[in-house]
Amino acid sequence: MKHFLSALDVPDVTALADSAAAFKAAPRSAETLGRGKRIGCLFLNPSLRTRLSTQVAAQQLGMEAIVFNVGAEGWALEFAEGAVMNGTTVEHVKDAAPILGQYFDILAIRTFPGLKDRAEDYSERYISQFVKYAGVPVVSLESATLHPLQSLADLLTIRETFAGGRRPKVVLSWAPHVKPLPQCVANSFAQWMTVWGGADFVVTHPEGYTLDPQYTKGASITHNQDEAFEGADYIYVKNWSSYEQYGQILSNDTDWMLTLDKLKATNNGKVMHCLPVRRNVELSDEVLDSAHSLVTQQAGNRVWAAQAVLADILKSNA
Amino acid sequence: MKHFLSALDVPDVTALADSAAAFKAAPRSAETLGRGKRIGCLFLNPSLRTRLSTQVAAQQLGMEAIVFNVGAEGWALEFAEGAVMNGTTVEHVKDAAPILGQYFDILAIRTFPGLKDRAEDYSERYISQFVKYAGVPVVSLESATLHPLQSLADLLTIRETFAGGRRPKVVLSWAPHVKPLPQCVANSFAQWMTVWGGADFVVTHPEGYTLDPQYTKGASITHNQDEAFEGADYIYVKNWSSYEQYGQILSNDTDWMLTLDKLKATNNGKVMHCLPVRRNVELSDEVLDSAHSLVTQQAGNRVWAAQAVLADILKSNA
Amino acid sequence: MKHFLSALDVPDVTALADSAAAFKAAPRSAETLGRGKRIGCLFLNPSLRTRLSTQVAAQQLGMEAIVFNVGAEGWALEFAEGAVMNGTTVEHVKDAAPILGQYFDILAIRTFPGLKDRAEDYSERYISQFVKYAGVPVVSLESATLHPLQSLADLLTIRETFAGGRRPKVVLSWAPHVKPLPQCVANSFAQWMTVWGGADFVVTHPEGYTLDPQYTKGASITHNQDEAFEGADYIYVKNWSSYEQYGQILSNDTDWMLTLDKLKATNNGKVMHCLPVRRNVELSDEVLDSAHSLVTQQAGNRVWAAQAVLADILKSNA
Repeated sequence: MKHFLSALDVPDVTALADSAAAFKAAPRSAETLGRGKRIGCLFLNPSLRTRLSTQVAAQQLGMEAIVFNVGAEGWALEFAEGAVMNGTTVEHVKDAAPILGQYFDILAIRTFPGLKDRAEDYSERYISQFVKYAGVPVVSLESATLHPLQSLADLLTIRETFAGGRRPKVVLSWAPHVKPLPQCVANSFAQWMTVWGGADFVVTHPEGYTLDPQYTKGASITHNQDEAFEGADYIYVKNWSSYEQYGQILSNDTDWMLTLDKLKATNNGKVMHCLPVRRNVELSDEVLDSAHSLVTQQAGNRVWAAQAVLADILKSNA
Repeated sequence: MKHFLSALDVPDVTALADSAAAFKAAPRSAETLGRGKRIGCLFLNPSLRTRLSTQVAAQQLGMEAIVFNVGAEGWALEFAEGAVMNGTTVEHVKDAAPILGQYFDILAIRTFPGLKDRAEDYSERYISQFVKYAGVPVVSLESATLHPLQSLADLLTIRETFAGGRRPKVVLSWAPHVKPLPQCVANSFAQWMTVWGGADFVVTHPEGYTLDPQYTKGASITHNQDEAFEGADYIYVKNWSSYEQYGQILSNDTDWMLTLDKLKATNNGKVMHCLPVRRNVELSDEVLDSAHSLVTQQAGNRVWAAQAVLADILKSNA
Repeated sequence: MKHFLSALDVPDVTALADSAAAFKAAPRSAETLGRGKRIGCLFLNPSLRTRLSTQVAAQQLGMEAIVFNVGAEGWALEFAEGAVMNGTTVEHVKDAAPILGQYFDILAIRTFPGLKDRAEDYSERYISQFVKYAGVPVVSLESATLHPLQSLADLLTIRETFAGGRRPKVVLSWAPHVKPLPQCVANSFAQWMTVWGGADFVVTHPEGYTLDPQYTKGASITHNQDEAFEGADYIYVKNWSSYEQYGQILSNDTDWMLTLDKLKATNNGKVMHCLPVRRNVELSDEVLDSAHSLVTQQAGNRVWAAQAVLADILKSNA
């Protein structure tokens, strides 16, 4: 593939998850693939797992990784076409992106949504302008609406832990939070589950939290969490702010927090979360500290997901 | 050379530009030269191109580069001799510099002027104290009054794009800006053009923006931009605050913004800018997005300039 | 050793100092020891020497070092067991630490005390929770109460400069400062001196500045600085806030600043300080700029101390 912004950029998500699993088994199996190649990781927003796992993945492929914190270390970028730049932005993406494309073989970018203007956020203007102007492959480290490296790690986690000899039941369950969060992880997980097609996939959330239908096509959607949990093999817990009343917190019904008690209805369900997690707000301590939790394994898998993606891009663009 | 703070540190600027061109043709041609050597890049001020191009250049020479953001990651340095340090500065350059000299083989430093006290800024006290106390070669990543890595990249850009079989006419043209900027890039470009001596060099700016004469000796200076542009091969656009009424913005005459219309008088003039550029303030979109613009190529050349400088220092201090 | 949090983790501090001296003599003598290994350096607080010397040490062992500024680049961690995380902390150490343990072979952490609650600080809750949850060796880059990498460098400095053929007299002398500082460096130096046992060790400070007795057992303690300095071979100058009236500045008696005049009573005493130092507050310029000062050598030795520690951990956990 050329760019990695969404599941739709991936010819075969199962094959990509297989590649991630292979790197997990043999981390240094392609340690010269990226020799003499450089990846630039631009963070317009903070990051822990994504930053570190991408650096680790690049190193294991023999690439040189350079991290740059836009804002903290640099300056505010302008994205508006035709802007008269007499305000606070000091450089236009049209000028910055081609230069980054000259310095790096792959550009990886994190940029969060503003959560004020849905059309603006869902246009993915920021990352798409990097794609347009950089002239090199662009990898999303989480964009305004999607988080594909997370979703690939999630898919790897499900595939490596399920031994049922049947289709697992996977539930994406909304959870309360104190701040309005992007829909990225939820959109992206739904997209990967439906594109993959290997699970019975259910999304459950309170009224008003319906996700963008382009990502949930083929999923069962219900406001009844109890019903959704019935016989589930995996519960993916995640907060998101409203897509309909864009960026709003409509409810903080603490009943939606995942507890051990709720897991009783599941098929000894495994619990997933992308982290960071607000303990005792989204999930209870007792769940996170139990054998149900896959969150550490899932975050560990971020390395192999990133490595599979970078390796594929290096091969495709060699 | 030992240090790289100005064109005057360079025995032969043409030979150095040739070395940069050679690295552009063969980036890894000296990939073991810096083996086991370390460069420390200290940023007392933000940076994008300089930071990344220096890291890339170092890597391509086989050096280990470590970046340190003074302030954000460390603490405020004291530069005053004899200071009783009971205020906000927590470490004296006399103590910090020798230690950095023990950790690194080359020290590269960015430090901006305060634009309040001309004598202070033009004394280059900050970077010269690193030179005095570090005990290792010091490379300017832009200091209070000069930006030699930029100027070397600029010289490379002019030399690789001019095929006239005669001396090009090169114009440095002041442009409006919303903030008072240092004179560094303008001083430095003027210095390199006059030291190089390969061009007919003209500086044009409104009244009150005369640069320090030590850097423009040998240049034609005019307040008439139209006259300056007549038959020009290169227009280098740059804002600077007043040197005479130090650090002030005296005029923001929007007439000085470079437009396509103004380029008509030139000899199909190429347009340069060090970036970041305020679009539609310094230069119009139509110029930057036209074939006249060299700004991306120029920024790309920052890598080769840095690589030539580091390679020369490594060889000279071997 | 498994972890490196204190002198008590070290089977033989003399042997470790010997190893540091050996690396100083031959920096690249173990350059493949860390091949394919990664160290993650987490800074919850700012750092210059510790950050850079650890990166340098890791590189010289062939390790890949990744630095992460928690807070600036990431987010606030929660350390309280059972917290309902509906406030400003966004991730619990119980979730973050195991993931970092998956990404890195060694985790190095800097975390300062709050200086509000002595029991809290002296419980070393932060770093001990990383030890508990990370599942990999943890190295202190300075914790709430100790700074062992500094102390190992200090021990190396004393051992390599003393040629008396007898036990040196080493004095730790409190100095004034404008801010309340941790007791870490003082505690740690006292601990290493007493564990080492190779010196006659004296601690001198004004009333109210008694250190935690667990670290000064075996030392002579006096409020009489003149008496302490009598015949001393080494004066280690350091400010700390009160342990008894926890975190308070009780006195800023400028008489305690070290001057050349005070050194007359010593045996041509060498002067040490961990840096950063407030000139003309803790020590006078004339002392720091004299041949008495070991501070640059001492800071340079931070590299070899870190390298000895990392090498030992790599070997012990191979």
